[in-house]
Amino acid sequence: MLPFARVAIIGLGLIGSSLARAIRAEMPTVALTGHDASPEVREIARRIGLCDDIADNAGAAVTDADLVILCVPVRAMETVAAEIAADLPPECIVSDVGSCKGEILAGLTRALPGRIVIPAHPVAGTENSGPESGFATLFKGRWCIVTPPDGADPAAVERVSELWRRVGANVEIMNAQHHDLVLAVTSHLPHLIAYTIVGTASDLEDVTRSEVIKYSAGGFRDFTRIAASDPTMWRDVFLANKDAVLEMLQRFSEDLSALQRAIRWGDGDALFSLFTRTRAVRRSIIEEGQDDAAPDFGRSH
Amino acid sequence: MLPFARVAIIGLGLIGSSLARAIRAEMPTVALTGHDASPEVREIARRIGLCDDIADNAGAAVTDADLVILCVPVRAMETVAAEIAADLPPECIVSDVGSCKGEILAGLTRALPGRIVIPAHPVAGTENSGPESGFATLFKGRWCIVTPPDGADPAAVERVSELWRRVGANVEIMNAQHHDLVLAVTSHLPHLIAYTIVGTASDLEDVTRSEVIKYSAGGFRDFTRIAASDPTMWRDVFLANKDAVLEMLQRFSEDLSALQRAIRWGDGDALFSLFTRTRAVRRSIIEEGQDDAAPDFGRSH
Repeated sequence: MLPFARVAIIGLGLIGSSLARAIRAEMPTVALTGHDASPEVREIARRIGLCDDIADNAGAAVTDADLVILCVPVRAMETVAAEIAADLPPECIVSDVGSCKGEILAGLTRALPGRIVIPAHPVAGTENSGPESGFATLFKGRWCIVTPPDGADPAAVERVSELWRRVGANVEIMNAQHHDLVLAVTSHLPHLIAYTIVGTASDLEDVTRSEVIKYSAGGFRDFTRIAASDPTMWRDVFLANKDAVLEMLQRFSEDLSALQRAIRWGDGDALFSLFTRTRAVRRSIIEEGQDDAAPDFGRSH
Repeated sequence: MLPFARVAIIGLGLIGSSLARAIRAEMPTVALTGHDASPEVREIARRIGLCDDIADNAGAAVTDADLVILCVPVRAMETVAAEIAADLPPECIVSDVGSCKGEILAGLTRALPGRIVIPAHPVAGTENSGPESGFATLFKGRWCIVTPPDGADPAAVERVSELWRRVGANVEIMNAQHHDLVLAVTSHLPHLIAYTIVGTASDLEDVTRSEVIKYSAGGFRDFTRIAASDPTMWRDVFLANKDAVLEMLQRFSEDLSALQRAIRWGDGDALFSLFTRTRAVRRSIIEEGQDDAAPDFGRSH
């Protein structure tokens, strides 16, 4: 038995379009409607047949849905929720895929008083954006964190969870505040650091841009991948999860200062000790199936 | 015409064993001898037939060579050079593959007075270590930087350059000091930051190790790859290239503080502007063939 019969996806970028494809692949009888604020994206979505119907406005997409999933940047969530409020069927569940659950939960609750809101966050993605970059298997083997508000209906939580399981994800339930702390370290801080170092390298006077690019295989190129992620999405993430990001950034800066000091004073033992410890983390990630075991991410050589 | 007829490789880890395999593949008539300080590594090298001969000491490996390539950690270079000094044929060229050229050039010059020393650095690798992790195509399409001392014989520089071209690398000539500045940003700083963030994430109290691993696909897992690199090699790199690494680290920290401030004060425009700029760098790296164009490094999904 399918958890939902009529799903509306608002926002057809990488995640929204991947979810549409995954629902098509795994639950082909689900009636799928879609909307995107951009006319160009709607045009592409129609051309590639992403959904059964692409509506020209968000309200029209949700009139018949039993699940609406908002797949827009974090700071657009509340606005989009307000746009669909009048057209939303009473029993319809509203969910989303945003990376910061605290602010989104507050925004959706404000915009949709009395409605069933069950936020979620599939921890998956690539550096690419747009409806053509999505693919049906994006969520397979990844985790989706569902963050129900206090007092949420367990049956509604289970239906949203089941949708994510059907598209291949493992599901974890967590409160929004803890989610935001965990993701600050596993996702937001890494992106912030990657954006920073790519900026630092671009601004040097003594080393040319061409040299940075030519010799990027020494390690730098790894950082450029996530630093190529969608600017709007990530601006919103840092503003919406400010406290947790600043807390993790502070810890990172302290640890970096300690290493800086070890280098300055030639403390090889301190360096060696950290570098040995960090190897174990990589091993665990591979053992738990969260990355390829192939060396160099399996890049072709 | 081959640049060398008899090559000795000292140190049979990832780079040394890859070079041995590449020479076998591309220049099969070259007589190849090898040595590694570890009896276990010598045993493996003999079993897998890495070289024509594996010598039990470094001196015995070089007696007949016209090129010796030292593939040992940066701070072991001078010691190994001193070990081979007495056995080195007079016309033999000594080169290496170390990641910090200034300190290595000084060390080799001290240990081998009057000998032909032409350091080089192939900017290539994976996070794996040891003789069984090497492969013949590691250097294909990558850059090898040759850093001859002032007044080096151009013919010797050309022979070393030609060896690297034969195994598939592009060659650039640079002085050691500039090399160390360039690599500080394209390789050493990225490794230092990756080691730091993996350490920071491991040390949290409110987020468990298990959570860090489960949700690492949010970006964190990218950093764990280079933070799984060889601890001895990297300890040596940071101690040997101290000044350039500290300089780049200082710049990075300033840039990170600026972003921290932008987040604290909600300056979305500053964030958006940086995040847009960094996308272009990724594009250039792919256009220049220094990384895969496939999304997510081509990881399987």
